[in-house]
Amino acid sequence: MSRGKLVYAQSGGVTAVINATASAVIRTARLNRVKVYAGRNGILGILNEDLIDTSKETLTAIRALAHTPGGAFGSCRFKLQSIEQDRPRYERLINVLAAHDIRYFLYNGGNDSADTVLKIAQVSKILGYPLTCVGVPKTVDNDLAITDCSPGFGSVAKYTAISVREASLDIASMAKTSTKVFILEVMGRHAGWIAAAAGLAGEGRDAPPHLILFPERAFDQADFLHQVQVTVDRIGWCVVVTSEGVRHADGRFLAEVGGQDAFGHAQLGGAASALASLVKENLGMKVHWALPDYLQRSARHIASATDLAQAEAVGEAAVNYALQGKHGVIPVIKRLSDRPYRWQVVAAPLARVANHEKKLPRKFIRSDGYGITAAARSYLAPLIQGEAFPPFDHNGLPRTAQLRLHSVDKKLPAIEK
Amino acid sequence: MSRGKLVYAQSGGVTAVINATASAVIRTARLNRVKVYAGRNGILGILNEDLIDTSKETLTAIRALAHTPGGAFGSCRFKLQSIEQDRPRYERLINVLAAHDIRYFLYNGGNDSADTVLKIAQVSKILGYPLTCVGVPKTVDNDLAITDCSPGFGSVAKYTAISVREASLDIASMAKTSTKVFILEVMGRHAGWIAAAAGLAGEGRDAPPHLILFPERAFDQADFLHQVQVTVDRIGWCVVVTSEGVRHADGRFLAEVGGQDAFGHAQLGGAASALASLVKENLGMKVHWALPDYLQRSARHIASATDLAQAEAVGEAAVNYALQGKHGVIPVIKRLSDRPYRWQVVAAPLARVANHEKKLPRKFIRSDGYGITAAARSYLAPLIQGEAFPPFDHNGLPRTAQLRLHSVDKKLPAIEK
Repeated sequence: MSRGKLVYAQSGGVTAVINATASAVIRTARLNRVKVYAGRNGILGILNEDLIDTSKETLTAIRALAHTPGGAFGSCRFKLQSIEQDRPRYERLINVLAAHDIRYFLYNGGNDSADTVLKIAQVSKILGYPLTCVGVPKTVDNDLAITDCSPGFGSVAKYTAISVREASLDIASMAKTSTKVFILEVMGRHAGWIAAAAGLAGEGRDAPPHLILFPERAFDQADFLHQVQVTVDRIGWCVVVTSEGVRHADGRFLAEVGGQDAFGHAQLGGAASALASLVKENLGMKVHWALPDYLQRSARHIASATDLAQAEAVGEAAVNYALQGKHGVIPVIKRLSDRPYRWQVVAAPLARVANHEKKLPRKFIRSDGYGITAAARSYLAPLIQGEAFPPFDHNGLPRTAQLRLHSVDKKLPAIEK
Repeated sequence: MSRGKLVYAQSGGVTAVINATASAVIRTARLNRVKVYAGRNGILGILNEDLIDTSKETLTAIRALAHTPGGAFGSCRFKLQSIEQDRPRYERLINVLAAHDIRYFLYNGGNDSADTVLKIAQVSKILGYPLTCVGVPKTVDNDLAITDCSPGFGSVAKYTAISVREASLDIASMAKTSTKVFILEVMGRHAGWIAAAAGLAGEGRDAPPHLILFPERAFDQADFLHQVQVTVDRIGWCVVVTSEGVRHADGRFLAEVGGQDAFGHAQLGGAASALASLVKENLGMKVHWALPDYLQRSARHIASATDLAQAEAVGEAAVNYALQGKHGVIPVIKRLSDRPYRWQVVAAPLARVANHEKKLPRKFIRSDGYGITAAARSYLAPLIQGEAFPPFDHNGLPRTAQLRLHSVDKKLPAIEK
């Protein structure tokens, strides 16, 4: 007797290791003889009955997903509204799942996505369709509630800490006659986790980064400029790391570029550029700034081995939960100890994760507001441990998965767009 | 009988592997029982008699330089004028060298630095001071004449190609509902070598990067926008790589940020930002852009093994040339074959390298102006081969050299600044 199929979809901004989760999902399902369809471009693939049959992929290709950045099946920024507002869409989703005998729904994303899974879990009950819904955590922002950390974060944290350490050696060597201030802008709209991770690059007053700007702290222009000046006076140069989401005391972002994404979030960019202008105009120092943007969340070449292991573990656990009939849960990371770092995956109710946003705790930000505390180091340090280098081809480039992405035949009429 | 000492100094923008050259210089000199002093902050350290005694460093530290980015002894942007204009400075330099029995002068830099070595070679002859002057090539820009490639370039080329490949997978997975155009701005003021290296990320019309903008080609706004549009129409997204030095047909940089460096070069930045605005305003597509800035030239964590080997080879050769009395030369890379890639180091006259600038040959740019040719691939591909990962500590960060930087006692009165 068929147990039904499992559908897996990726949602929201991708990470260096979300495909490692996908790889683990597919491999675990195969071990359990459950066929996995993937939604092409996340939930849109289910709405449009645009499904990919992963059973057509070789095991080699599925294994290679573990070292391939991006979202191999396509992701999306698309938020379903409340069940009342979006009822036809929810019904369509269930119809598509039913048409393909899909009994397990796994959605791999952040807080918004957890909310989507939760709603689908509710609708399937209302409509009487037997479906086990399980969330799968992912976000570079590390702002998911309940879980100790979010798969995807450890790798961007490692990329950021390494980049700060490397670039700082560059600035230090040039500061006598050239650039004295370097500003790195990192992702983090409301939560300063990535900026905090930059603090791992060095320890002590004179080690870079000298100043970290968190979205959790209001930006104080005069004090910031003073801190830059005294740092340059003391050691000759200054490295600043700023979250993209840094705001003035009145709530305005330091630099909004205009526009909104599909979730209604303001599109940001330009905090480093704004800070660089401030330093140049007010202190007259030569400044450089960097904005790695998507490079930071796709840097699979320097992924954290810890993060990779966790990304795979939540994928495996999600399938196991689904097959065990654990409806409406999400696997999360539970920390057992800092040193040595030990962790395990446990199931948490989706409702406790959906739509919550975990900010950097106050105790992680140094009292002067410009650095991280010992508590933050204890929390962050294990997450960047280990190097999960991808295999490289003879041409010097990392090898990535080559997928067929075979489309499943449609069984339903197309919906109006 | 003492053979005299050797002084080594670093000049101009640093690279991921200039310290590997320094490491080779010091190790080769030690093997020959010649003491090496380093100028603190390049030529300024010699002018100010601010010298570092590298014999106080452990062999472990000197070896660790090979995997430490930045310029360990400090670099500088400082250009000596003609001998007539700057005669007191040249005389001071010779006085400092004489006071410390320095008989070998090695200067590690780009075209401007080669010019400096050449002038010091001339002045030492005029003043009758026995000094062997040897240049040591280095620049991420790959714009040095005579040498087949410049140590430092292979690593930034590898970083760039990998970053484009990784970020492109990110864009591809999000394009359906989010960012459709991604623009990466790379270094390259007048020569598009780094932008060309981005082309190694993929091959064929649909592989990213889809459009490369070279400083060697005038920017045509209407055609650029057309190319972006047709690429998005065809495959759903578009990845653009732009050199910082891209210019309009009238010679204006796409985005000058104002200011000049010590060599009188305009300070650039913002080509990607300018292009992003163009795309957003004219095509109404969601755009992201990245500016890795110093991250690209300090990314020792993903250095090219080929580049590292060449950086070490020119350091070793420079010392050997100096000790052989080869005055006014610079070791350069000579390519023997593309496949398999074979190369050797040969001596070239400094005069043939100084102040020349090697642009991307016309035959390396695709006829439509937006990509690289097969000839460019044959040239570039070997330079990014091999991964020279640094050692990592248990904390997940790359290990770097810890130097004492012991100052040599001064023997001369200070000069007026």
